[in-house]
Amino acid sequence: MNTPLEQVDAALQEAQIAFFSYKNSSRKMKAEFLRAIAEQIEALGGELVSTAMRETNLPEARIVGERGRTTGQCRMFADLVEQGDWVEARIDTALPDRAPLPKPDIRKMLIPVGPVVVFGAANFPLAYSTAGGDTVSALAAGCPVIVKAHPAHTATSELVASAIKKAVDKTGLPKGVFQHLHGNGFELGQALVKHPLTKAVGFTGSLAGGKALFDLACQRPQPIPVFAEMSSINPVILLPKTLSQQAEKTAATLVASITQGVGQFCTNPGLIIAIENEGLDKFIKSLSEGISNSLPGALLHQGIANNYNKRLTHALEQNGVTIEGQSTSSVIDNQGKPLVASVHATTFLTNPLLAEEVFGPFSLIVKCKDISELNAVVSHLNGQLTASILGDENEVATYSSLINTLIEKTGRLIINGVPTGVEVCPSMTHGGPFPATTDSRFTSVGTDAIKRFVRPVSFQNFPQRLLPDELKDNNPLGIWRLFNNEWKK
Amino acid sequence: MNTPLEQVDAALQEAQIAFFSYKNSSRKMKAEFLRAIAEQIEALGGELVSTAMRETNLPEARIVGERGRTTGQCRMFADLVEQGDWVEARIDTALPDRAPLPKPDIRKMLIPVGPVVVFGAANFPLAYSTAGGDTVSALAAGCPVIVKAHPAHTATSELVASAIKKAVDKTGLPKGVFQHLHGNGFELGQALVKHPLTKAVGFTGSLAGGKALFDLACQRPQPIPVFAEMSSINPVILLPKTLSQQAEKTAATLVASITQGVGQFCTNPGLIIAIENEGLDKFIKSLSEGISNSLPGALLHQGIANNYNKRLTHALEQNGVTIEGQSTSSVIDNQGKPLVASVHATTFLTNPLLAEEVFGPFSLIVKCKDISELNAVVSHLNGQLTASILGDENEVATYSSLINTLIEKTGRLIINGVPTGVEVCPSMTHGGPFPATTDSRFTSVGTDAIKRFVRPVSFQNFPQRLLPDELKDNNPLGIWRLFNNEWKK
Repeated sequence: MNTPLEQVDAALQEAQIAFFSYKNSSRKMKAEFLRAIAEQIEALGGELVSTAMRETNLPEARIVGERGRTTGQCRMFADLVEQGDWVEARIDTALPDRAPLPKPDIRKMLIPVGPVVVFGAANFPLAYSTAGGDTVSALAAGCPVIVKAHPAHTATSELVASAIKKAVDKTGLPKGVFQHLHGNGFELGQALVKHPLTKAVGFTGSLAGGKALFDLACQRPQPIPVFAEMSSINPVILLPKTLSQQAEKTAATLVASITQGVGQFCTNPGLIIAIENEGLDKFIKSLSEGISNSLPGALLHQGIANNYNKRLTHALEQNGVTIEGQSTSSVIDNQGKPLVASVHATTFLTNPLLAEEVFGPFSLIVKCKDISELNAVVSHLNGQLTASILGDENEVATYSSLINTLIEKTGRLIINGVPTGVEVCPSMTHGGPFPATTDSRFTSVGTDAIKRFVRPVSFQNFPQRLLPDELKDNNPLGIWRLFNNEWKK
Repeated sequence: MNTPLEQVDAALQEAQIAFFSYKNSSRKMKAEFLRAIAEQIEALGGELVSTAMRETNLPEARIVGERGRTTGQCRMFADLVEQGDWVEARIDTALPDRAPLPKPDIRKMLIPVGPVVVFGAANFPLAYSTAGGDTVSALAAGCPVIVKAHPAHTATSELVASAIKKAVDKTGLPKGVFQHLHGNGFELGQALVKHPLTKAVGFTGSLAGGKALFDLACQRPQPIPVFAEMSSINPVILLPKTLSQQAEKTAATLVASITQGVGQFCTNPGLIIAIENEGLDKFIKSLSEGISNSLPGALLHQGIANNYNKRLTHALEQNGVTIEGQSTSSVIDNQGKPLVASVHATTFLTNPLLAEEVFGPFSLIVKCKDISELNAVVSHLNGQLTASILGDENEVATYSSLINTLIEKTGRLIINGVPTGVEVCPSMTHGGPFPATTDSRFTSVGTDAIKRFVRPVSFQNFPQRLLPDELKDNNPLGIWRLFNNEWKK
């Protein structure tokens, strides 16, 4: 049996060898590979669904839906890679007669960075784990991937890994393109991040875990980027006029969003901010009723359950925090009890603990006495994945300075919608200022997720036949390119 | 007199206030501002040229040329911002009838990150200092800038800062959009990087300086990106067949590149790699003659001169290093003496010190006994800004695995050209893997330099009138956008 360090070194050496051929494989081959992953995951059939259900306590419909999202992401990146525009080709042709100096021919495109290490999410055992967004966007970019199986769903991870490995074989790629390692302790993960051949890291999980990997990566002799998606309480701001008109409807919408998936979404609305008035009283009454009627659900695993109970208790112990409603059903074992509490803005502003994420079906209402207090609460917020404003168009329009402030705090701003439900599409930003992520310049969902695993390279004075196809004069791939400062196809 | 900490806090508070209006100023106003900076720099006339000459020992033609580059960059970014495509707009319209869940309307674009701190370069007192590429790309993005004046050219920096401040006034922008601080010690710089309102840092200088700022930025409670351009020896590989045919011509080209600007370019060719044969002997003979006839020149300042002499002496003291040629003129005071040395590949491979940058008119020739040794030397290289291969097209074509390796080490790959001379254009990558820079995913030269100071934000379910113009249905700015997965204007 090899030590973790030996395992990691062997894996990275294998990945590096694979990188040198995989990066140069055609876009058709990469697309075929990504589609084969989707097919092989589908071929796992009911075994994958039942295994994931058993390991995560998530219901069948959710796992089946998530499988569809996972294979959909594979095919989306296959289309992206096959299409080819994503490389951001720029061409500036030579001006040999320019004075005082001739201008050389320069062309640029994005190329893959090298082997990528992925730490999957507990709460998305398929769509953000072994063959999840991080893995498939890195593979699409041309980077080999090493996944460290999430300890909470190792059997699911093993099944998905077997599907990816079959896709590797079927496509005739070197086996180092995808590798899958198991390990419970920190040692394996640390060794993966510290290995000199690792060129980037994808992570979804806790603030403590993500920040620890980020620190390790920064302290390497050659620092590398870590894309850690970590912690967000997703503030929802209720505008007063709309709230008084639609208190019950708003409450129902939020009850559904808070309890969806037993609150185990990184976009769960953990903070509700509103100005005190009759509308808010009606809303809280209605929200409390909805939450009392909500059923507790089994959380992903005992660690998540312990953590929810610990953090919830700690939040409720803080001065000035009042429970507004909680599920009236008895809670057993590994379940999470839906609960909402409230606090006055002045208290919220002076206790940073109240702005920390409680991962589970919990939300804290912050009561503000007026708009200036509401603005103070918003200005005080940390970085977030999302921020939402609920209010009709005319009312929202009168809060432009609120939007102006919120935009600085978040990766996605929503009007009249809840933050749960993350579309996989080109316009999605699933990211945001720290501590939501370690790098707000990138998204981990949608086609642009590929940009995390690439860097630009310029080719100066290259003969046509030595240029990558993306940059040849005759544009054999038919992609959009910035050609002498004009977009052309 | 305020302490550095008070100065820094006041500057960042001012910058933050300015940010909230400047970020929302129209593209026309930002473009007007950038063009006004160019005009005000030109209006400084001869005083700027003579001041820069006095402070940097650079000749008039060089300063005048660099001023043209500086104002050219201002106008290039003005055009970019006015045109507007750079925001990478993506629009995915709603599908309210989609099953099982409706798809919301989501739109995305790049927005500025906030106040940016710039540490300019000693060797480009205009084009990479106070109003240099970092400053103008950050201003173009919509970020206020605080420049810490380079201690080696404070009067030049003060003049340029006065020009930028006039442009701020003329355009009617808040004065916090641009600020200029002086300080000799590390305290001011550290305080600027550590201030919570600072959102990104641009730096050009030494590996030690850049790495120290990077470490500080990573250790902040909220880490921020540092774009440090630091250290590169810009390997030049001479292919054997071409070398034997063009030894003298190649030598002349390299003499000019090594001694240009007294070797004070980050793209100076500090390493020449070739296979031992008659061609190489001829080349070295010719290079040595050229270098002996080259005149020493005054370096930028005494610190650079001391550093050049120290590092050169240290390199020459290493076992196996032979001086192949050096300027025969006597060297005085603050001058840098052109010198070339050689070493065998086996020695180079075992002594990491020989791969470190010696900033000045020096280059080290690495003699390889065959192609496999040459490949070993190339594989052994650190990250670089550039790598060059000199050889005719047919010969280069037989070295595809060499290109495949080199591409992993560099931001710009050149065939039959020298690395000095960095074009300012969309296809330029002035960047590269560590230690060339701290972030190989970005360029500090050319239009894409703007991408260092922005992040994506998604707008979900926004009414038309609350969307930024860039994302409105009717495309009032007429920019290219990815609209439901199709590029449209």
